[in-house]
Amino acid sequence: MALLFRQLFDRESSTYTYLLADTETGDAALVDPVLEQHTRDLALLDELGLRLRFVLETHVHADHVTAAGLLRERTGARTVASARGAPCADQHVGHGEVLRLGAHTITALATPGHTDDSLSYAIDGMVFTGDALLVRGTGRTDFQNGDPRALYRSIHEVLLRLPDDTVVYPGHDYKGFTSSTIGEERRHNPRVAGKTEEEFVALLNGLDLPPPKRLAEAVPRNRACGVEA
Amino acid sequence: MALLFRQLFDRESSTYTYLLADTETGDAALVDPVLEQHTRDLALLDELGLRLRFVLETHVHADHVTAAGLLRERTGARTVASARGAPCADQHVGHGEVLRLGAHTITALATPGHTDDSLSYAIDGMVFTGDALLVRGTGRTDFQNGDPRALYRSIHEVLLRLPDDTVVYPGHDYKGFTSSTIGEERRHNPRVAGKTEEEFVALLNGLDLPPPKRLAEAVPRNRACGVEA
Repeated sequence: MALLFRQLFDRESSTYTYLLADTETGDAALVDPVLEQHTRDLALLDELGLRLRFVLETHVHADHVTAAGLLRERTGARTVASARGAPCADQHVGHGEVLRLGAHTITALATPGHTDDSLSYAIDGMVFTGDALLVRGTGRTDFQNGDPRALYRSIHEVLLRLPDDTVVYPGHDYKGFTSSTIGEERRHNPRVAGKTEEEFVALLNGLDLPPPKRLAEAVPRNRACGVEA
Repeated sequence: MALLFRQLFDRESSTYTYLLADTETGDAALVDPVLEQHTRDLALLDELGLRLRFVLETHVHADHVTAAGLLRERTGARTVASARGAPCADQHVGHGEVLRLGAHTITALATPGHTDDSLSYAIDGMVFTGDALLVRGTGRTDFQNGDPRALYRSIHEVLLRLPDDTVVYPGHDYKGFTSSTIGEERRHNPRVAGKTEEEFVALLNGLDLPPPKRLAEAVPRNRACGVEA
């Protein structure tokens, strides 16, 4: 009943995809797979003798297109998203809902703020935080119903209440970090440590970032699970 | 006496750096740190309250410049390399030599072939293979005294003799893989599975790759631990 875990990277969009599997039953899940990497990911599933049961989306992405729909077509996996997320998903989950992966339990955590549909997923001492909490950073909140107050609460009232040694696996990284821990982010994340809600909101509202390059294309496609409408 | 482990990536050269530390004593080691990432890596050591004891080089790199000398200067760490490797190293280790990291033991494994000085390092069910064994690939053997026969033997007679569930952490990856296992590479690495020594040698000798962009600069600098001569 060991949990197989594998972190995968898409260099073009700096996106992390995560493979989880129960080694006994062969049941597998992919968190945030990227369309352009579907060949790599299907080959890995095949080599490891795994059956893809779930594609878990942390949110409707604005910077890359999901492989969810294509993987569903090829493997019969169920695509999972927030009720506020992609309408195409087979299963919409809310805060605290669980999915069984063999003998393991994946718990969905509602962590809105980067987008209103943002979920994190917790399993076996790990949490996949999507774009809510990044290593020494957070997602931005200036499109797709982003809301810095909601993000502040998601971080402080949901994610930072996990045990300090919970390993944080982010949806992206741009500096070469692959993981962190809840305790480490509590103490060293410059958007978290010592920041009041008002300071956080002012910081996020003042970022003035250019829009993601693929926003106009990616959002509608991801609402359709990456399949052409 | 838990082992802290962190994988770090340099996107420019696709190099993985690894941080290892005994959480009780705070003694830390970095495998293959990259010069341009020294600020990130020193900040991480500082935030985690770690003292850098060792910089472990898997070999004299041809594609990036090491941070070893700079980290030695800033932290007092000892730089470690093969006897055939960088003359600047404080400690030259051979096959089977061990280093103590708090309560943990790092074992050097001679795995020549990509270069004649290539070492792997094993600790706690993990092996850092440098450019000897990559995920579904191997290093090339066409410069720095590379030798495909030596690499074949390093892979088959050293690395593949480790337990199948040993986690393989490579020195580079270009496809977004972050790790593998010995068993997985035995079965699915196209340069390993079902390949005789003669087939492997012919394959490596026929690769016809362009030289690494930074070869002329990187090799002499790395022989001096990355510090300008």
